[in-house]
Amino acid sequence: MPEFKTVRGMRDFLPEETRMMKYVEKTARSVAESFGYEEIMTPLVESYELLAAKAGEEVRLRMFAFKDLGGRMVALRPEFTPSIARIVATALKNEPKPLRLFCLGSLYRYDEPQRGRYREFWQSDFELIGSAKPEADAELLILTSGLMERVGLKGCTFRVGHVGVLRGVLTQEGLDDKLQNGVLQLMDKKQYEDALGLVKTSGASEKCLTILRSLVELKGSDVSKAGETMKKCVDGYEKAVVAVENLSEILRLVVESGCEINISVEAGFARGLEYYTGMIFEAYVPELDVALSGGGRYDKLVELFGGEPTAAVGVANGVDRIMLAMQEQRVIMKEDAGKKIMIIPVGDETRAEALKISRALKNAGMVVEFEIMGRRIGKALEDADRRKIDYAVIVGKKELEEGKVSLKDLKKREQTTVKIEQLAETLKS
Amino acid sequence: MPEFKTVRGMRDFLPEETRMMKYVEKTARSVAESFGYEEIMTPLVESYELLAAKAGEEVRLRMFAFKDLGGRMVALRPEFTPSIARIVATALKNEPKPLRLFCLGSLYRYDEPQRGRYREFWQSDFELIGSAKPEADAELLILTSGLMERVGLKGCTFRVGHVGVLRGVLTQEGLDDKLQNGVLQLMDKKQYEDALGLVKTSGASEKCLTILRSLVELKGSDVSKAGETMKKCVDGYEKAVVAVENLSEILRLVVESGCEINISVEAGFARGLEYYTGMIFEAYVPELDVALSGGGRYDKLVELFGGEPTAAVGVANGVDRIMLAMQEQRVIMKEDAGKKIMIIPVGDETRAEALKISRALKNAGMVVEFEIMGRRIGKALEDADRRKIDYAVIVGKKELEEGKVSLKDLKKREQTTVKIEQLAETLKS
Repeated sequence: MPEFKTVRGMRDFLPEETRMMKYVEKTARSVAESFGYEEIMTPLVESYELLAAKAGEEVRLRMFAFKDLGGRMVALRPEFTPSIARIVATALKNEPKPLRLFCLGSLYRYDEPQRGRYREFWQSDFELIGSAKPEADAELLILTSGLMERVGLKGCTFRVGHVGVLRGVLTQEGLDDKLQNGVLQLMDKKQYEDALGLVKTSGASEKCLTILRSLVELKGSDVSKAGETMKKCVDGYEKAVVAVENLSEILRLVVESGCEINISVEAGFARGLEYYTGMIFEAYVPELDVALSGGGRYDKLVELFGGEPTAAVGVANGVDRIMLAMQEQRVIMKEDAGKKIMIIPVGDETRAEALKISRALKNAGMVVEFEIMGRRIGKALEDADRRKIDYAVIVGKKELEEGKVSLKDLKKREQTTVKIEQLAETLKS
Repeated sequence: MPEFKTVRGMRDFLPEETRMMKYVEKTARSVAESFGYEEIMTPLVESYELLAAKAGEEVRLRMFAFKDLGGRMVALRPEFTPSIARIVATALKNEPKPLRLFCLGSLYRYDEPQRGRYREFWQSDFELIGSAKPEADAELLILTSGLMERVGLKGCTFRVGHVGVLRGVLTQEGLDDKLQNGVLQLMDKKQYEDALGLVKTSGASEKCLTILRSLVELKGSDVSKAGETMKKCVDGYEKAVVAVENLSEILRLVVESGCEINISVEAGFARGLEYYTGMIFEAYVPELDVALSGGGRYDKLVELFGGEPTAAVGVANGVDRIMLAMQEQRVIMKEDAGKKIMIIPVGDETRAEALKISRALKNAGMVVEFEIMGRRIGKALEDADRRKIDYAVIVGKKELEEGKVSLKDLKKREQTTVKIEQLAETLKS
């Protein structure tokens, strides 16, 4: 028989890696819940029609799409957003706003596998639906930054921009949506000269080109200063000014809330997806060149999926990318692992009693492994040592008759005899 | 635009249902960890070759199988076992035994949707690899029963049998493996007359047919009595006697361990999968006619997937079926939900300060929703009431100047003024 392998771009997670993934997931869940977000679950298999409806071509062509046995065209979800928009437009249609929702799970894209990019990857999505206020945008930034802080990542920087700034300028110059999308996509890929070329051939003014050139270069970590500079820069472009004011207000709230966050305001920052309508952001650590999180405001999205016009702001956090960043930074997980005990029955006739003891210790909150290999004490203890077990409880026939067991502290190499009814107490102390 | 729907057999889980699913998952994880099991994650997409290798025809024909963009034949996993066997035979090949592993996740089968049976369903699998001892089988039963107990299900019954009993008789009668598989599959479907017919046409003795008839009827909740009866029944069939003794020893250990478990010993009980080699079991509650869990011993499985011969016993627990059973039994989840607070800034100029306060309360472990709709106090409080928030913290400009906020107990309808630095303390008490 040939040796079976995982499919290219798919990964197994062994115990140590799984522990870290589950730690990130648990932290994301706990942070989201502390902000009042409620978890929902959407199917992994959705209709192709839904998933393709608003996906950019890049995503659409890389979906795991296929016909199911009933002849339906379906696909594995490449992102959560269409499913969430579907639910908000249908099952949750009549729920009073705001809705604070989050999702956690795996997604699938047929990308070329590389560090931080796999065909099966995990995200935790936070969505705040129903508010157009700057405090909603601020909440998403604070929430995402809280997640990075809680998992223990250092030096996380948030690139923040606002699609309304560039669009405001371009709109006033008479460029239609399609042309604007083209310009923003080029900017997202940092092909600034091509972007400016496109603007120029569209008949925009010389002033506009100068402004765009300045915006692309405009970056700063001092939020209020960057806001002022940007505002001066787009002077005369009314909608762009409004966008700058909105961004400044969002960032003022974030900074003054006491959130410890490194912000890089970038006026020329654009994200690939066309559905963003306001503030946009991405989170990075110095050790990785892929974004750990990406999000922003998309006030038209629910409408695009057939719902009522609904203001919304959301973020997708890459769970396995966060894990990768934690590995790079050698983050130590804050987990209070319970004491690990191994119960070793000596001889077959003590097994039932030994199982009873292990039940009592588990009920007292300990991690209890039962020696199920029928090994001799010496062999079992060797194994316990190797696996970093804290205590061995040796259940021998003679001690058992006196209601006692031997307790061996494997760290201190000390052995005592303990009454069974005092065992849990002794181990806890 | 048409209204988008979930694909047939797939489900959305809204917040209330998700909470229950996550509760079952968390409990399964916690119970498994308390027995020393370590979690691993395997890909959802595996090679068709791996998944089809040992699957029965029923499963194989109902897989979500397709060609990926690289032309590989792949499928969504219909069960965890092949993936786990693959890992044990490869990445964990040299790990000392025993291995205690568990998996949690979704699986896919193109079945006809009905109550308790969906095309996307969730399982938690526990696998104990490397021991052929009866205490290993006992551990799996105790572990599974512990899960049912911990999620709060009442009246759970374990149907327990041993494929060695029937196979022992049939082997001694000269039936080959293929014929035996046919007989056991008919028995699994409770087509006993067809099963006996097949045995008869295979040239088995009259005595054998009488014994099989008795075995099919042999059921009992008194473990030791049922064992004795079964032993007498198969007298003269050496391998069957050994199997009965093994089953009796397993069940004695379970009962004497103090595990509160309802057992129905069923001598004629068979499970569809061919790879079982010893004790087999299924768990049921009276409210559902589908099994919540199913498992047993499969000592040849790892070998079948290219590994060393390895003793193993495992169980698959239906997470969404357990959830369905909990709903039927109206189980109340034991969760200590933190106090829920809503922070309401009055006027735009108090928002940053209000965000700062909400940060402090979250750090103190509370669930804090920020009023991000810019609503007036009355409207916001109405919403807080509807959503069962415990306290509202109203941040007004005047109080803020004195370092204070208004605290409204929404259950008692009482309002007080509290110093900001004492707020977390007050809310915790």
